[in-house]
Amino acid sequence: MAATPWYFVAALLTILTSSQGILTTLSQSDGGYKYDYATVPFLAEVFKLIISGLFLWREMRTSSSTTSRITTDWKSVRLFVIPSLIYLVHNNVQFATLTYVDTSTYQIMGNLKIVTTGILFRLFLKRKLSKLQWMAIGLLAVGTTTSQVKGCGEASCDSLFTAPIQGYLLGILSAGLSALAGIYTEFLMKRNNDTLYWQNLQLYTFGSLFNVARLIADDFRHGFEKGPWWQRIFDGYSITTWMVVLNLGSTGLLVSWLMKYADNIVKVYSTSMAMLLTMVASIYLFSFKPTLQLFLGIIICIMSLHMYFSPPQTLVDLPVTNEAHPKTLKQVVVEEKTDS
Amino acid sequence: MAATPWYFVAALLTILTSSQGILTTLSQSDGGYKYDYATVPFLAEVFKLIISGLFLWREMRTSSSTTSRITTDWKSVRLFVIPSLIYLVHNNVQFATLTYVDTSTYQIMGNLKIVTTGILFRLFLKRKLSKLQWMAIGLLAVGTTTSQVKGCGEASCDSLFTAPIQGYLLGILSAGLSALAGIYTEFLMKRNNDTLYWQNLQLYTFGSLFNVARLIADDFRHGFEKGPWWQRIFDGYSITTWMVVLNLGSTGLLVSWLMKYADNIVKVYSTSMAMLLTMVASIYLFSFKPTLQLFLGIIICIMSLHMYFSPPQTLVDLPVTNEAHPKTLKQVVVEEKTDS
Repeated sequence: MAATPWYFVAALLTILTSSQGILTTLSQSDGGYKYDYATVPFLAEVFKLIISGLFLWREMRTSSSTTSRITTDWKSVRLFVIPSLIYLVHNNVQFATLTYVDTSTYQIMGNLKIVTTGILFRLFLKRKLSKLQWMAIGLLAVGTTTSQVKGCGEASCDSLFTAPIQGYLLGILSAGLSALAGIYTEFLMKRNNDTLYWQNLQLYTFGSLFNVARLIADDFRHGFEKGPWWQRIFDGYSITTWMVVLNLGSTGLLVSWLMKYADNIVKVYSTSMAMLLTMVASIYLFSFKPTLQLFLGIIICIMSLHMYFSPPQTLVDLPVTNEAHPKTLKQVVVEEKTDS
Repeated sequence: MAATPWYFVAALLTILTSSQGILTTLSQSDGGYKYDYATVPFLAEVFKLIISGLFLWREMRTSSSTTSRITTDWKSVRLFVIPSLIYLVHNNVQFATLTYVDTSTYQIMGNLKIVTTGILFRLFLKRKLSKLQWMAIGLLAVGTTTSQVKGCGEASCDSLFTAPIQGYLLGILSAGLSALAGIYTEFLMKRNNDTLYWQNLQLYTFGSLFNVARLIADDFRHGFEKGPWWQRIFDGYSITTWMVVLNLGSTGLLVSWLMKYADNIVKVYSTSMAMLLTMVASIYLFSFKPTLQLFLGIIICIMSLHMYFSPPQTLVDLPVTNEAHPKTLKQVVVEEKTDS
C-alpha cells in the first residue's frame, strides 16, 4: 500500500469525498436526517481505528521489529491529541461564525482554507513553493469560489457583503484552524519513521474519545430527553447511512496516507476537485441546473492543477529565438532586418 | 514616440478604452442617443487620418528619406483595404448573431475573441507561446467571462444555454473574424519598414471610405427620411459626443502603435483590463452593485497578466533541494534518513 503512487490515492480520495456529499444527500428522507448525524463521525472514527488496528497487527506479525517502528513514549503519544483539540476549537469557531453569517457566505469563505493551508505549509513545514505554485493555490481558491457564485434566479445574495465584521474575522480564523489541523497532522505523520498504522491508531483513539465526549455533551445539552446516546446510536440507520459511515472512514484513512506520503496541498487539490465533481454529478443525479460559473470554475481549477503539478520546464519552455514582447522600435527594426 | 515602452502605451490604451465605455454612457440622454451613433466611428477615422497626416508631414520634413520609408506601390497599398473589408463582414456576422442570441449571451461569447486571437497569432504570425502563456490566455478569457456572470437578483439567464446552435456558430465566427482583423493588421504593420504614419494614413483612408459607404447605405435603408447624412452629421452633438469621437480616435492610434511595436496579445490584455476597469469605475460613477464575480474576475485576469508577461524564471525558480511531491514511501524514507 505504501508503494502506491500518491496521485492514485489522491484520485481515489476525490471520488470518495465526492461520493460523501452525494451519499449524505441520499441518506436524508423528506429533506432531513432520520438518524442522529453526530453518530456518523463517531462511528467513522471507530471504523478507522479498527482498520488501522488490523493493519498494524498484520504488519507486526509479518515484519521484523527493525522495519516497523513504534514509539510508545507518552511524550510522543500525547502529540496525537492535538489534532482532535484543534478540531474541537474549530467546531466551536464554526458555530460562532454561523451566528454572524449565513451558510452560503460561510461556504464561500471556506475556500480561504486553500490559501491558509498554503501559508501554514510554508511557515510551519518550511516547504518552499515557486511563485507559479503560489498563483496556482490562489487560483484553486478562486476557481472553487467561482463555481459557488449564486446564479440569476436564485435568492438575493446581498448577505455576502453585509455581514458584521466579526463574521468575516471568525471565518478567517476558522480557515486558519482548519489548515492548522491539516498541517499539524502532516508534521505528526512525517516527524518520525513510525509505521502509518501505529500513527493512525493513536490519532483515531483520541478522535473516537473526542467524538464520544461530543455525543455525551449533546445528551447533556438536550437534557437526555431521548435517552443516552448509546441506547439510540443506530436509530434511523439505513444501508445508505452505513455507506456514509464507511465512506467517511475510508476518506479519513486516505487523508492519513496522503499526510504521510504526499502532503497537504495534494489533499487540498483532491477535496477541491471532489467539490466540483459533486456539483457535476448533482446535475445528473439531482437535476441541478448547470451554470456558467460551474463551467468556469472547473476550467480554472484544472489550469491550477496543471500549474502546480506540471514539471515547470514543460510549462515555460520556449524556443530561445522567440522574443514575445518587443519593447521599443529599435528592437523591432533590428529583428525585421535580420529576418529579411 | 516610437521609443516609448510598450507597457506605457498599453496602460494608456487601457485607460482610454475604459473611458470610452463611460463617455458613451454619459453621452446618452434619457437612455438613448440624441445623435446618430454611426457618425462617431466615421469622425474618429477622419480624426485619425488627420493626426497621422500631420505626423507624416512632420516626419517627412525633419528626417532624411533613408530613415522614413514609404511604399506607394499599389500592390502594397491595396493590402490596407483588407482590415476594413474584414470589419465589414464582421459587422454583418455580428448583426446575424444577434438575431439568434440576446446581447448578454453575445457579450459572454465575445470573450472567445481572446482565445481566437491567441490561435491566429500562432497560426498566421507563427509566434510561439509557452504552455504557461497559452494557459494565461485561456485564463484571461475565463476571467473576463467570470466578471460578466449574472448575479442573483438579476433577470433570468436561461437564454445562455438555450439559443439555437446557429447563434453559437455565428458567435464563434464573429470571434474568429474579430481576431483575424487584429492579426492581419499586425501583419501589415510589421511586414515592412514603412513609417507607422504612412501605414496609418493608408489604413484610415480606407477606414473613412468604408464608414462613408456605411452612412450612405444607412440613408438608403431609411429612404432618406431625415435627409442625407452630411446635412445632419453633427445633429445632437454635445461636448461629451465630441469627447467620445476624440477618445475613440485616440484608442485607434494607440492600437496601431501596439500592432507595429508590440503585438495583438498586448492589445487583448489592454482591452480586457479596460473592461474590468470600466466595471469598477461604474460602481462609483453609476452606482453599480459590486459583485463577487467581478472581484474574482479581476484576480484571475491579474494572475493571467503575471503568467503571460513575467520572465518565466522568476515564476518557476525554486531551491533545487526542494522535492514538492514525494511519490512513494521509499522516497520519503530515504529523505527522512538523509535529513536526520
